[in-house]
Amino acid sequence: MRILGVDPGTRIVGYGLIDRRGADFEYVECGVIRLAETDAMPRRLFTLAQSLAEIIAEHQPVVVALESAFHGVNASSALKLGQARGAVMLVSAQHDLPVAEYAPALVKRAVVGHGRATKADVQTRIKLLCRLAREPSSDAADALALALCHAQLDMSAGPGRRPT
Amino acid sequence: MRILGVDPGTRIVGYGLIDRRGADFEYVECGVIRLAETDAMPRRLFTLAQSLAEIIAEHQPVVVALESAFHGVNASSALKLGQARGAVMLVSAQHDLPVAEYAPALVKRAVVGHGRATKADVQTRIKLLCRLAREPSSDAADALALALCHAQLDMSAGPGRRPT
Repeated sequence: MRILGVDPGTRIVGYGLIDRRGADFEYVECGVIRLAETDAMPRRLFTLAQSLAEIIAEHQPVVVALESAFHGVNASSALKLGQARGAVMLVSAQHDLPVAEYAPALVKRAVVGHGRATKADVQTRIKLLCRLAREPSSDAADALALALCHAQLDMSAGPGRRPT
Repeated sequence: MRILGVDPGTRIVGYGLIDRRGADFEYVECGVIRLAETDAMPRRLFTLAQSLAEIIAEHQPVVVALESAFHGVNASSALKLGQARGAVMLVSAQHDLPVAEYAPALVKRAVVGHGRATKADVQTRIKLLCRLAREPSSDAADALALALCHAQLDMSAGPGRRPT
């Protein structure tokens, strides 16, 4: 089961792919999609959607994992993040991929062991778990953490559980 | 020049089309896209995108007009509205349509004459301006108001002005 984690933003979108193999997992790929700040938002979302569609076509994931909420964010930032998130959700639905959502604290707990981990903690831990030569960027690490969180929770819940 | 105004929401999305003809305009159509509350958000955005693509294919607008900001909204609501807005922006960009954004007060001023107009004021005024037999729903009226606002401001700015 290949899982695509996505960490959407209005300038940088992190993505990470892992394969769940029974009780274990295997790292596939991670990276970032960069959106030009000189582009208006509709054009940025177009770039995001196109890049995401290419990643889906190449890697054929069966589920997309997203963060369920943005904490400590004001209404204006939430609106912008929502736009990027909406584009990711729409592309997922257009590719018939279910979207699973996980709260940030749950993702940190799954990967680092406690819910108050810093971004650096997540990067260090992801490098170790995925056996990477170097630490991935924070956005790519967050996306991989989402994919790992989904793999863990999906495993513990057994094969009957399905994301919506 | 055919203008498509869109008022996105997570349950109801209003849309309205007008043709600008020189200094005048002609009403084309308005309505709402209903999103099932029992559907998860990615599925709702899929329905929204599909319906919007059908409206664009049928009516061939050359520009999409959206509200630029949501006032008095908390971060959680802004995130959800942002998702619907992101889907509208993405579909517009995928159809190569520029998106023009107008502040709510500017739209009300353009249609009713002052920026503190109520939703009912907008509905009454839209019925009159578009020579409709009945008042459109509030969401459809808001969408038509956006299209009319774009027509007026685009007219006064002359042919050199282009939305981003």
